[in-house]
Amino acid sequence: MTIEQAAVVGLGLIGGSFAGALRQQGIRVKGVDADVAAGQAAAQLGLIDELSDDLAAVLDGADVVVLCVPPATVLRLLPEVDRLAPPSTMILDTASVKVAVTEVMSTLVRGERAIGGHPLAGKEASGPAASEAGLFRGHTFILTPSTVTSPRTMDLAAQVVRMIGGNPYVMPAARHDEVLARTSHLPQILSTALALDTQDVDAVCIGPALRDMTRLAGSDPTMWRDILMLNRQNVVAEANGYIAQLREFVSMLEAGETARIEGVLRSGRQAGGALRGVAA
Amino acid sequence: MTIEQAAVVGLGLIGGSFAGALRQQGIRVKGVDADVAAGQAAAQLGLIDELSDDLAAVLDGADVVVLCVPPATVLRLLPEVDRLAPPSTMILDTASVKVAVTEVMSTLVRGERAIGGHPLAGKEASGPAASEAGLFRGHTFILTPSTVTSPRTMDLAAQVVRMIGGNPYVMPAARHDEVLARTSHLPQILSTALALDTQDVDAVCIGPALRDMTRLAGSDPTMWRDILMLNRQNVVAEANGYIAQLREFVSMLEAGETARIEGVLRSGRQAGGALRGVAA
Repeated sequence: MTIEQAAVVGLGLIGGSFAGALRQQGIRVKGVDADVAAGQAAAQLGLIDELSDDLAAVLDGADVVVLCVPPATVLRLLPEVDRLAPPSTMILDTASVKVAVTEVMSTLVRGERAIGGHPLAGKEASGPAASEAGLFRGHTFILTPSTVTSPRTMDLAAQVVRMIGGNPYVMPAARHDEVLARTSHLPQILSTALALDTQDVDAVCIGPALRDMTRLAGSDPTMWRDILMLNRQNVVAEANGYIAQLREFVSMLEAGETARIEGVLRSGRQAGGALRGVAA
Repeated sequence: MTIEQAAVVGLGLIGGSFAGALRQQGIRVKGVDADVAAGQAAAQLGLIDELSDDLAAVLDGADVVVLCVPPATVLRLLPEVDRLAPPSTMILDTASVKVAVTEVMSTLVRGERAIGGHPLAGKEASGPAASEAGLFRGHTFILTPSTVTSPRTMDLAAQVVRMIGGNPYVMPAARHDEVLARTSHLPQILSTALALDTQDVDAVCIGPALRDMTRLAGSDPTMWRDILMLNRQNVVAEANGYIAQLREFVSMLEAGETARIEGVLRSGRQAGGALRGVAA
């Protein structure tokens, strides 16, 4: 199966980076973005070969279409893309929630050619100007088949992921949403809350630690609204578990349990070291 | 007032970096560390001119002594340093809590020559091998006088801070402990709790966001035990405020209040941008 042409819908950080990485591999890339300025920026940056405002024209001749729009927009666009795309065009998305996406994918007329995707790469900056063709290089790219995804689609998706330098990793959508609620969606909430909590602090008192911990708060609010809402059951459960853990730590502090506090800090250091000692 | 010789007590990340920065300015530095291996490493790395295991010998001839040991050890050592140091030796510490430290400073026989200090620089790595002479360069270095600190001591401390590249910033110890509970001590707890929360997660699912948010968890447990215990009243208050904020966000998620969630995320991005010194 050779891939010669791709369509990228949404030309922000992820879409722009995806398009740029595909172009570097000699793939012809057509792009579309509802935001005219973003589309033009992507074209000027050389991330795509051709810009259009017509979804049908962008999909025409594409071996693969990649949806790089906020999660709720993915859900809305999937039936339209399925209707407009040539029958053999593989459909891949990049949203950070996968149960809602694969549920819609399984209901498409040609659902066998659609598969969920989530690159574990990114940064808090957004928009085409933040794009990097190397963004996915060496990073895990999770693939979540729907109940009707074909083996051909799975192979093709893995091929596309390797093409942009990512490491394909197949997992069930439900498991993805559970794990990411903990590793990504919870950290996002924590960072946003901390940024709000410290916004009035004298700037001279802000050190590198706080800057690190509030970096995520800079992420795109529209995208994160969709992610948190679509995965809210898991996110609420994780947040409640985390709050319970914080409460316990606060109780130890109130009770002055020095040895237990040191024990928690020591375990945390070990856990943090293990988290950083691994290539993702 | 010229400074020709300094004593550094504790040769970990902060002490080693402080010693190295002073040496770069032509100051003769004598060092001591209760951990024999750490002391020897600091000597081998050229961070100090002379290593000794005798506090009196290290203090002999010093124009300034800098205490770079965990906060509880600072409290314990202060009276001994005051007793052993020549009468004109200025005493500066670097602990992340300042009320407890300046209270002890105000009770010293020669309390006028002691002042609290806290460099807002650091990293999660510890020990002399992690030291960098440039660690403090361009960073705020908070100075907190006690009730008896003399103007001469304040001038001398500011001079030492500028010598190592830091920006001296004077503030009351009580205010320091309140602000740092929010900007540093709370983030430390959040990072530790998140590292513990995610330690069993499949390594392949760990992205850059989680690594950022758990970096602080790698900090020295002994030092942080002291910081959290000595500032626990402020830390408990800040943690409780943060928990209340998280709870409110979880309630919005449970109630499916999409617009309010987007509003919080948007405010969080603005706040985070302001913290990083950029317009968001």
